Amino acid sequence: MARVSVLHFERAEYAARLTAVKERMCAEKIDVLVVTEPPNMYYLTGFDAYSFYVPQAVVVALHLDLPIWTGRFMDAVTAQSTTYLPSDHIVPYPDHYVQSTERHPMTFIGNLIANKGWSHASIGVEMGAPYYSARNHSELQKALPKARFQDAELLVNWVRIVKSKQELEYMRAAGETTDRMVAAAARAAHPDIRECDLASAIVEVQLKGTERHGGMPSSGAPMICAGARANEPHPAWNDQKLGNNVPVNIEMAGVCHRYHAPIGRTFYLGAPPHSYRDLAERVAAGVHAALDVVKPGASCEAVEATWRNTLAQWGLEKEARLGYPTGIAFAPTWGERTASLRKGDTTELKQGMVFHMMGGLWIEGTGVTITQTFVVTDSGHENLTKSPRELIIIP
Amino acid sequence: MARVSVLHFERAEYAARLTAVKERMCAEKIDVLVVTEPPNMYYLTGFDAYSFYVPQAVVVALHLDLPIWTGRFMDAVTAQSTTYLPSDHIVPYPDHYVQSTERHPMTFIGNLIANKGWSHASIGVEMGAPYYSARNHSELQKALPKARFQDAELLVNWVRIVKSKQELEYMRAAGETTDRMVAAAARAAHPDIRECDLASAIVEVQLKGTERHGGMPSSGAPMICAGARANEPHPAWNDQKLGNNVPVNIEMAGVCHRYHAPIGRTFYLGAPPHSYRDLAERVAAGVHAALDVVKPGASCEAVEATWRNTLAQWGLEKEARLGYPTGIAFAPTWGERTASLRKGDTTELKQGMVFHMMGGLWIEGTGVTITQTFVVTDSGHENLTKSPRELIIIP
Repeated sequence: MARVSVLHFERAEYAARLTAVKERMCAEKIDVLVVTEPPNMYYLTGFDAYSFYVPQAVVVALHLDLPIWTGRFMDAVTAQSTTYLPSDHIVPYPDHYVQSTERHPMTFIGNLIANKGWSHASIGVEMGAPYYSARNHSELQKALPKARFQDAELLVNWVRIVKSKQELEYMRAAGETTDRMVAAAARAAHPDIRECDLASAIVEVQLKGTERHGGMPSSGAPMICAGARANEPHPAWNDQKLGNNVPVNIEMAGVCHRYHAPIGRTFYLGAPPHSYRDLAERVAAGVHAALDVVKPGASCEAVEATWRNTLAQWGLEKEARLGYPTGIAFAPTWGERTASLRKGDTTELKQGMVFHMMGGLWIEGTGVTITQTFVVTDSGHENLTKSPRELIIIP
Repeated sequence: MARVSVLHFERAEYAARLTAVKERMCAEKIDVLVVTEPPNMYYLTGFDAYSFYVPQAVVVALHLDLPIWTGRFMDAVTAQSTTYLPSDHIVPYPDHYVQSTERHPMTFIGNLIANKGWSHASIGVEMGAPYYSARNHSELQKALPKARFQDAELLVNWVRIVKSKQELEYMRAAGETTDRMVAAAARAAHPDIRECDLASAIVEVQLKGTERHGGMPSSGAPMICAGARANEPHPAWNDQKLGNNVPVNIEMAGVCHRYHAPIGRTFYLGAPPHSYRDLAERVAAGVHAALDVVKPGASCEAVEATWRNTLAQWGLEKEARLGYPTGIAFAPTWGERTASLRKGDTTELKQGMVFHMMGGLWIEGTGVTITQTFVVTDSGHENLTKSPRELIIIP
């Protein structure tokens, strides 16, 4: 059969990503990088399958032009259809490795590395990445006893924190979907609707996406935090009706080619008390002030300090960090785990970085959230979602 | 504020689960079990939040009556609202531990264990669980240098492989939703619909659930494998129209209180060739034959052998295993990772075990899937989804 690959980026862009990663490998004296974090595998090769419940990796070697994909045999077909890798760079393991008591896929992957002549190499692994389990690490070490292992967590993440023109186009498309989701939630929200039915109405729009770009699921389903659970950030929804005179905090993201544009908004069913309206206005003012200082060269902690000082004038404070970079995401999170908008983080903003600024306050048993995903431009910022930053009142 | 917890099971059921886990700990000489796999945390305490992108754990100690929940401060509220644990068994870490370059949550968790007097204990950890990263393990070891670490992966999973009456009720409810999803897919499938819009129609129904039990998202979105990608098991959908005369394999699951009832079905748009119809009938016959030998005492490999022999008469063979246990699931998989229906697995079926039998063949660039989720009864099996096991033809 003829092979048909669908790539969402030019080959030159993948090549540039690989070069940037190899430069960092060089600087950190890593010969071979075993990339296991799904967004990083996707970033470097295009590989896109929901197959990360079994061990798999993209292996980047300094002295080999292209990466090698390795994973479960049945997913090799998807490696063929979603990546630019030549077929001899796609090396699947047989099914008897899967959840076996006798053998482990990381032995296969270790042997693959050894057979390439890299058994004495310096091997970078993503120690804290979600699917690089303690067992995976220990089996890989066993298979490569002469290698020198080195933590390379976030190495690729720090490369992909700056987005390209094409990536930003996808993120703008994701943002369009996000705005439609906000509108869908506002249409559906009603005291008599069950939380699960509200979720259904939102996700229906999320998956459709736009006419130009179909939608995809986000790395986690929308967080619907209603009524008594408005002070919980990551709860499951239930099948109770929303009820009257309650806030509903929703955090969600439109997605285009795995690129996320998250948003958090509070929907208030009924007439909010003045104190609650005030709280929402103050959160919006804090976000507005913090966005105003965003530009290349500003530090993460300076942006957060502006938020913090704005809120402090009303005696308000948020314990959690103000935000994180976002982009490509698979379960379990759309955060990139690199920089944080918080005190002590001196990372300098650069043009092309995208952050989700988590404006919100969770106090006195309630919560309000008004957030903004933005990209750093040459002189300031551009909002990737256009929904007004205000409390959404459902009368 | 008064604390209101919503439990989906009787306290006695949680107590029985804990006892069963402690018995296994005893047998394996484990004093303290650090449970990090989200379904296991949910099983033992009810804790239900999409917060597993940061380290968190349920700590079970042989000599302490109830487990301890530990995780990010903001999710402690959800530990209060979804578990039966007394407040002094909910021990959150502050936000400056999150994705910090200076400190790690596992240090906090290790210190918590040490402060309880268990610094010299034998500590069980789930080495291969998805979110127990190599870094988490190494930091926990650093914080407990005198402890003896022991792999306890799947310890809780092997307890939860047998479902209770109440669990089976939830799985039947999940199956009702699954059947509605199959019907929704059949209604929506059409040569002119985009894959993403088909996904939207299915998930809309998934999240609504039934009148009695609201729906939830599954551990992964439906797999929609259409046309040229019918031979891929875990691809992302795209925004192309389905087209004419193509098979569309869909794998998906209805969910009730995190309990999954998965199904795989092939929808054929147009008139399938005779050879394709034959393939589908043979898969259905293989599943039928294999289900016929299911009963307490039968081995996993015996069930698979029946499938294998049935298919062999037509010269057909499936490389991958025939199935796996299912139940509570969070991303990235609804498989429980214990037994497998495959050659060499001598696990004996017991009443109350639930499996997803993955009837399907992926050959010659195409694929067909007709699966069945069933529970082992006292003398045979009960199907948890009722959709007919046949090729679904969309004329």
